[in-house]
This record gives sequence, C-alpha cells and structure tokens, in this order.
Amino acid sequence: MKETFALKGNLLYTPACGQLEQHPQSYLVCENGQVAGIFAQLPERYQGIPVDDYGDKLILPGLVDLHVHASQYAYRGLGMDMELLEWLECNAFPEESKFADLAYARQAYGIFTDELTRSATTRACIFATLHRPATLVLMELLDRAGLPCFVGKVNMDRNSPDILRETTEQSLEETRLWLEQSGDFTHVRPMLTPRFIPSCTDELMDGLGRLQREFGVAMQSHLSENLSEIQWVSQLCPDTAFYGQAYERAGLFGGACPTVMAHCVWSGEAERALMKENGVFIAHCPQSNMNVSSGIAPIKRYLLEGQKVGLGSDVAGGAHLSLFRAMTDAIQCSKLRWRLVDQQTGALTLPEALYMATKGGGAFFGKVGSFEPGYALDAVVLDDSALPTTRPCTLAERLERVVYLSDGLPCAKYAAGRRLF
Amino acid sequence: MKETFALKGNLLYTPACGQLEQHPQSYLVCENGQVAGIFAQLPERYQGIPVDDYGDKLILPGLVDLHVHASQYAYRGLGMDMELLEWLECNAFPEESKFADLAYARQAYGIFTDELTRSATTRACIFATLHRPATLVLMELLDRAGLPCFVGKVNMDRNSPDILRETTEQSLEETRLWLEQSGDFTHVRPMLTPRFIPSCTDELMDGLGRLQREFGVAMQSHLSENLSEIQWVSQLCPDTAFYGQAYERAGLFGGACPTVMAHCVWSGEAERALMKENGVFIAHCPQSNMNVSSGIAPIKRYLLEGQKVGLGSDVAGGAHLSLFRAMTDAIQCSKLRWRLVDQQTGALTLPEALYMATKGGGAFFGKVGSFEPGYALDAVVLDDSALPTTRPCTLAERLERVVYLSDGLPCAKYAAGRRLF
Repeated sequence: MKETFALKGNLLYTPACGQLEQHPQSYLVCENGQVAGIFAQLPERYQGIPVDDYGDKLILPGLVDLHVHASQYAYRGLGMDMELLEWLECNAFPEESKFADLAYARQAYGIFTDELTRSATTRACIFATLHRPATLVLMELLDRAGLPCFVGKVNMDRNSPDILRETTEQSLEETRLWLEQSGDFTHVRPMLTPRFIPSCTDELMDGLGRLQREFGVAMQSHLSENLSEIQWVSQLCPDTAFYGQAYERAGLFGGACPTVMAHCVWSGEAERALMKENGVFIAHCPQSNMNVSSGIAPIKRYLLEGQKVGLGSDVAGGAHLSLFRAMTDAIQCSKLRWRLVDQQTGALTLPEALYMATKGGGAFFGKVGSFEPGYALDAVVLDDSALPTTRPCTLAERLERVVYLSDGLPCAKYAAGRRLF
Repeated sequence: MKETFALKGNLLYTPACGQLEQHPQSYLVCENGQVAGIFAQLPERYQGIPVDDYGDKLILPGLVDLHVHASQYAYRGLGMDMELLEWLECNAFPEESKFADLAYARQAYGIFTDELTRSATTRACIFATLHRPATLVLMELLDRAGLPCFVGKVNMDRNSPDILRETTEQSLEETRLWLEQSGDFTHVRPMLTPRFIPSCTDELMDGLGRLQREFGVAMQSHLSENLSEIQWVSQLCPDTAFYGQAYERAGLFGGACPTVMAHCVWSGEAERALMKENGVFIAHCPQSNMNVSSGIAPIKRYLLEGQKVGLGSDVAGGAHLSLFRAMTDAIQCSKLRWRLVDQQTGALTLPEALYMATKGGGAFFGKVGSFEPGYALDAVVLDDSALPTTRPCTLAERLERVVYLSDGLPCAKYAAGRRLF
C-alpha cells in the first residue's frame, strides 16, 4: 500500500443528508488509508506524492450495501412473480440448502465475490447461509478481494424446511465456533445473523444475545418487511407489542453493538422510537420491497426523524447488485409514496439517495462514506464518456446521468486506501 | 431481402395476454416478411432455405415502444428531482427549441436512432418537435435504419414558451405540408401529434381533426397523466366532463384512425368507457409515471376490462429506452398498486408484461408482436450467456433473467423480415 498518495478528478460527496459537495479537478489526498483532505492544488507538504490522475472522470465515495444475501445471487431475477413467503419456500430455501456442499459454495460465492468486486460497492453487510464452513469460504473470498465487509452465518431453528434447519443447540454451538474461527481475516468481520423472528426460537434468540455480549459483535436481521410476516411474528411472540420487541427482549436491538435491520416498511411509532433510541440502522431495500410486494418504506420521514438509514440491494429479493439502481429505486418509490400514501412528506432527492448509499450506510462501519478528513478512503472512479448526449452537463448533472443511466461499474476502486483495481 | 428463410433458436412469445408459448430449438420460418410458421423440424417444402442458426439463444418478437420523445433523448436521466410541469419548463421546452437548428437535430436524432437501432425495440410511436424540417430528418434517419416507426411533428400553439410555439395557422399549414412530404419513406409513417391539450387551442384541435379525416393518419398524444395537468385541462376546457373529451370533440379520439394515448394514470370510468368503445390504445409508461410523480396507472384492471394496452419508455420522462426495463417497472409498480391502492386487482406477471411489450403494443401497427402465422417477422435474438449462475434454468426462467438483468441489447434483430444486424 502506498502510504500517502492522491486521486485526482472531479470529486463528489455528501457530508450531510441532501448536501452535495462538488470539487471539480481536485486532489483527494490519502494518508494511511484515510482522507487527509481535498485540495485544488497539492500543498507543498504533498509535492511529489504519487497521483492517480483520472482526468475528467467522476470520483465518489465507495458505496455501502447494508443488506445483501450472497447465497441468493445465483437466482437473482428469478421467481419475481411470487410474494415473500412463497418466494422463500420456492427459491431461497432450496437454493440455500445447497451450501452444505463446499464445492458448490465456492463456485456460487466466487461468482458473487467477483460481481461485488466489479461493482461500485466497497462495503456490505452480507447474509451467508446457516452453514459455518461455507460461510468461512465466503469470508475468505471477500477477504482476498480486499472488501471490508461484515458477513453473517445465518441462524434458523424453526419454521424452515428439513434441508435448511438447525437445532437450537447446533445453531448456538456452530455460531460460537464460527465466531472463534473468524478472527484471522484482515478485512472481513463476522456479524450475528438470526434470519428473522419466524426462523428463530426464543431460546435461540436468547443464546445469540449472550453470544453478542460475550463477543461484542455487530448484528443484522429483517424487520417489519411484509404484512403477512408481521402478523406471523405477532402470533409467534404474543407477548410483544411490536416486531422489534422480539429482538429487543433478547438484547439484540442496537445499543452497545451496531445493529442493522433490513426493510422497516411497516414500522409503527413505538418501533421507530426504539430504533432511534438504540441507534438501530435501517437498510432500505426499495427494489426488493417492490418485487415481493411489501410496500414502500417511509424513508424520507425516517430521515426527517433522525433515523440512521442506508441502502440495501437485498439481492435476491432485489434483482440488482448495483446501489445506483437502489438509489433511483429509492427516489422513484418515494415519489409514489408521496403521490399515493403520504402527501405531507415529499420525495427523496438524488443528493439524499447518494447520502444514504455512502455516508448514511457507511456510518455502520465507522467513519466511512465521505471525503471529509479522517474518513476511510473508499472511492470509486466513474467514466461517463460512453453516455452520449448533445448537451453540456454540469458535474451534478453528470452524476445524475451516471446514477440513472450507467451500468454502475467503476473503472477504478479503492477501499480503506487500498486500490482494488 | 431473402424471401424465405428461417431463424433457429429458443422461441418465446405471447399469443394472448399472460400466455407464454415456448418452442425450444425450433425453426421460425419467414415468407415475404411474415411468419409462415414454427416447426420443430423444417418441413419438406422448406428444405434448403437459408437458416440463421442462433444455437441456444433466446428469440423473442421485436419490442414495441408506444411512446417515446426522440427529441428528449439527449437529456434522459436529468432533472429527475422535478415534477411534470416544472420539468417541462426547465428541461423539455428549452431542449426542444434547439431543433430549429437542422445540424443540431441531425446530431441529436442520430444519437437517438443509433440507440434505438441497438435496442430490442423494432417499432415505436415517436414524438419529434414542432419543427417540420427536423422531423423529416428524424424520419429519414429511422427510415434508413429500417425501423418501421410512426413519427409525429408536434403541434403546440399555446401555453408554451416563445421559443417553442406556433400560431394556429402555422401549426396547421406546417402539418399539412409535412404530411404531404412524408409519403416517400419506405418504413416510416407520419402520425398527428398534438402535444397535449394544454398546448393546443380548440381551433388547432379542430383543424387537426379535419386533417386526420382528410389524410387518414394515426394520432398520438398524452392523457390523464398527472393530477395538476388534469386540473389545468378542466380549466382550459370547462365544457368537457373529462380530459379525453377534449380530444373526442375534435374527432381525435380513436374510431377510424388508430389512436394512442400515453399514461392514462388517472382515467375515470367515463374516459375508460370511451377509450374502449373507440379502440384507443393506452401507452403505459411506468418509469416516467414514477419519475415525474404522476402515480401508478391501473394497468392490470385495464387489461381485465379489455382495453388495448402497450408499453412506452417515455424517454425522457423515463430515463431508459429499454422496454425490458419498462416491463419490470410495470410489474413492480403493479405490485405497489396492489399493496397500497387496490387490493382487489392483483399484480402484473412477466408473461403479461411481455404481451404488452410485444403483441399488445404491436396491434397498433397491425399484425405485429407475435410469432403466429401471418404476423410481421419482427424478432430479436438475446444472448444470456453473460449472466452467470450456478443454477440450471428453464426457458421461462432464462427469459425472466434476460428481462430483469441483461442490458437489453440483442445480438441480432429483424423487422418485417429484414435483418437489421
């Protein structure tokens, strides 16, 4: 790793939600993996450092995917005419059961890791499957690719097919063993991953709560995604007032350890108050919420409330790994929500969507997702020259075109100051 | 043109709405530009005809775009944080005014024609601008590319900026002259194109109605897209009961001449009854309806009612020219409508979306959009080998992946029996 170097190009980032900073033809200086500053001309103290000059291209913070199922990548874009619970039965569960076979896991996770590497995403919170050895394979592949991700071995001990279910004891023992085996990776970290409440008994949740307090690890799961799922949870946990309580009573709902909950389409006031109090992150997955007919999460309102919100591709509920697609899906869904559901809260804007895809989700990883000094130097370089137009565009317009129109693949990519390609 | 030949590959089409026909490894025989039949083996009478063998690739009917603005292609994906009327003021009108310059028009329409040629779209109903010479340039380019499209010189004589407005007399004279000059194209045909009621005085509409009866040409416009637009129309035409009547009273709402209306997001019962009675086609443009915050058209219900429905990209209200994207947008929007607005009417399925993108919209052009005998041989060949998966897929699943995941660009394309590439 070059310890001090600079990227040069057109820098764009969002220091605050909705605020787009633009630095045309500027230097982004990296020292020891972190942003040292942005300069129109290199100051004297940096004269002579290596400069990766990207000419007129656009440079953005690396994108952060707060919710993606690596084990579902192989069937993204399939079974999209089904609703959530049917889709899980017919697609997710049979496919995930194949990861008992390590050779299969290596092939499938290899495809996923290759595609994630090529994408504009630098960090992600990733679901594997319940299989410990296969989960370690995924972590090894991501670590070798240099992607600083969280990965979770999934827990599920009820309401799952025989081919994809653990006993409570197995689930806890395997999770402990996996946490102990996960210490050797350079870039990748483990996070607890109870699939969702319908798949996890109270005993399993309590045990995972104890493991979290012992190991101090982050945690991810699903929350209030779909109306039929929420009804099911209220039947399974009759002593809870809302879905999130089923996590909270096990001590698994934010607080000391970073927690991210995918979806939150239908979270009520009490649930939202608790999320805010505990600093729970919301992974907004708009395309998945359309594909499995969940609805539209009130994300603009969440942002106004001060919730912590990032974006998720939710492959394979979502068909696309690109977070640029997630950004435009989020904007488009927010417009429909504004028109059809809640005329009080306006639509999301492009700078708000970019914030969620970078600094919003990045905060889960610490100082990530911005070009402010002290932030990890995650960056992607985008070439918009293949998008023909007769119109001269401002930097902000070029950003909008890249987000809406490009294939989302950067021509260069950096994570924590390391150049990945 | 080879008079009799065959395509070989995996044939997929929708003879009826929602009904997917699959012919793996079959021959699609073309005679004089039309489908002669589908055969597992070539019958004796066709032995020795040329065969374009596409191996294991997928072959679909060419897609039909019932609504697209060629003059807006240069700024697709821009200004997406605005609502319809603001977006027209800031984006559409200034850009369209540039088409007074023929050199600019040739450049911009060249980009559009190149991209349309590369796409899976074989036919389209296209808005140009109000400029007759530039419209003829677009028609010339499309004709040379071999794309059998309808193109409209736009009419607008009110509520438009000075840089983009005709007098009523100019508008009618230029339209007549343009219709007279449009007879020499081989593949491209003219259609009347009053922009929308707010842009056209009653006198202009009446004059266009007379021109339609004289020339017998098809017609396209916008209808019931956006709530503020509808309110405006009711103020401009106080003696009409609904938006569609403002077209009908000029004799411009279906009947003898084919008519297509874009959007119909908010069409009420009376408007829908009249559309059905007069055989007016609906161009459903789901992405545009999201981008400019119009809403979700009740397309599943329209299909159940027996309306004639096709899909439109509506570039640049929509950012994407690909009708595969329009198909998935239509499905996703229908799921949100089902969840949030109308629980009685289910979501669209992939075969229904494919039907709308092929035979549904194709009917506007005659026997187009199917592989049934007698239909025009419009076909696109799709290579899905670049979409990695570990899972063996059925033909229907491969279709779903191509629609959701591919870049939408075919590797070969035919229109009316002519191979375009």
